[in-house]
Amino acid sequence: MGDEADFELRLKEVADKVTVALDQLIPPASGPEADLMRAMRHAALANGKRMRPFFLLETGAMFEAPEKTLLRTAAALECIHTYSLVHDDLPCMDNDDFRRGQPTVHKAFNEATAVLAGDGLLTLAFKILASSETHEDPAVRVMLIERLADAAGARGMVGGQMIDMLEEDSPRDLNTITRMQRLKTGALISYATEAAGIIGRARELERNALAGFSNDLGLAYQIADDLLDATGDETAVGKPLRTDEIAGKANFVTLLGVDGARQRVRLLAAQAKEHLAIFRNKADILLQSVDFVLDRTR
Amino acid sequence: MGDEADFELRLKEVADKVTVALDQLIPPASGPEADLMRAMRHAALANGKRMRPFFLLETGAMFEAPEKTLLRTAAALECIHTYSLVHDDLPCMDNDDFRRGQPTVHKAFNEATAVLAGDGLLTLAFKILASSETHEDPAVRVMLIERLADAAGARGMVGGQMIDMLEEDSPRDLNTITRMQRLKTGALISYATEAAGIIGRARELERNALAGFSNDLGLAYQIADDLLDATGDETAVGKPLRTDEIAGKANFVTLLGVDGARQRVRLLAAQAKEHLAIFRNKADILLQSVDFVLDRTR
Repeated sequence: MGDEADFELRLKEVADKVTVALDQLIPPASGPEADLMRAMRHAALANGKRMRPFFLLETGAMFEAPEKTLLRTAAALECIHTYSLVHDDLPCMDNDDFRRGQPTVHKAFNEATAVLAGDGLLTLAFKILASSETHEDPAVRVMLIERLADAAGARGMVGGQMIDMLEEDSPRDLNTITRMQRLKTGALISYATEAAGIIGRARELERNALAGFSNDLGLAYQIADDLLDATGDETAVGKPLRTDEIAGKANFVTLLGVDGARQRVRLLAAQAKEHLAIFRNKADILLQSVDFVLDRTR
Repeated sequence: MGDEADFELRLKEVADKVTVALDQLIPPASGPEADLMRAMRHAALANGKRMRPFFLLETGAMFEAPEKTLLRTAAALECIHTYSLVHDDLPCMDNDDFRRGQPTVHKAFNEATAVLAGDGLLTLAFKILASSETHEDPAVRVMLIERLADAAGARGMVGGQMIDMLEEDSPRDLNTITRMQRLKTGALISYATEAAGIIGRARELERNALAGFSNDLGLAYQIADDLLDATGDETAVGKPLRTDEIAGKANFVTLLGVDGARQRVRLLAAQAKEHLAIFRNKADILLQSVDFVLDRTR
């Protein structure tokens, strides 16, 4: 490890593992309902960064948590993330035609299939976690399920998406956007490290450190995403950019400016890293990953 | 007990209990995302028959299963049923404006809110089951979750909805419709009795009897629903009827005729009751309920 090429390789390896796991976990396309599975696969097996799974797996590795449990939990988390993208891309929501460098589900299939494929992926996430294949102890499985339902539900990700929809016509300030981010994207990023702590049987002090870390990281990631939207290259990113600008929506960059946003990312990155101090050199990979995922060009 | 008025009262009592439970379990409307909770409440607290909860609670009562566990599981099941109605009513799906005697969620709010409210209810179902409030034994909770995810997912309810969408433009035969029914509505009805068996720690023989019962009941209920669609009174039912006729979709009534469909319902009802023989007089209420729910005028 150490240099950037090695790190990128590691990120790619994790992403591939998650894709293989999802391929095995999503039912094969068969029967008259086969298009449903095809649509679920189209969305979930596409070339995603798998950032949430990456943080789950690398945090879990610090605790020497069982890899199979981590991988299945990461796959469940990615099912939730993917379903949210499928529904978010619908014409009645963000109305996006491209995602991860390919047509969105409602473009490649149709709207009804996109609604159902999202529903199917959301349900599959809980099925994966409930299975005895994930962990031998049902108490661990049920805790992973309860926390995922919290992170993904009306007081978590879905609530954040609701704020995002509502705010399209009204002016947004930094408080509203920060709250929206904490729910819409922050909750699932926090789940990644929290789930790893549950699986790895982390102590309270460690769980608190992970919560602080993922909180700062999640916010930094969103600001980096807004920077990418404002300054990135559409072809490299694989989805339309300047979307907030076009929709006249305020985001961290419109409110803080490009330089202000960059400075905020650096500050949050430093803060995120400080939380990891208690893990000493076991946190090396997580520390490296902070700069890497925040230095976004795609 | 015994006469129809008493029975109707009992059905109403169960429905009210479930509505009260849902009212407590769905987060209150607050924060900028308040419309999300309002939409979830609009859908879930409306005047539904609560047929699935009824079968869950009455089956559980046969085993003297703990009422709180039954009620929370019934509420979770109703969250799943309700979310499926909210998504099914969307313009890109069945495009229905009325449901349970009131405007559908996308009419009362908007489409984006309906998508998110459905997602929120689906996620809430698993949160309810995962909570230690539902049952002290995590192994029971996780089994309830796994079976619900099976019944509701791509190889269950969502798969059935997919077949329903696909078949709009192609001719349907009895086999396709029976398969679609088994997934789309049968899976959740079967879950009602299966979950009660899990909570009540039913023996294998009893679980098999419940599976046979709910399988016949579910199919009979769908045929009765198609009869209602073909012959019912729109005002009493509270939603548009003749929908299949208008869409030119085959259903059990168009394929079997009104008399043939009625005969099939009677046959299945008798078969359903036979499965309950092993429970002797403990099954009295379930036996009564069969005729009652199949004699549908609303």
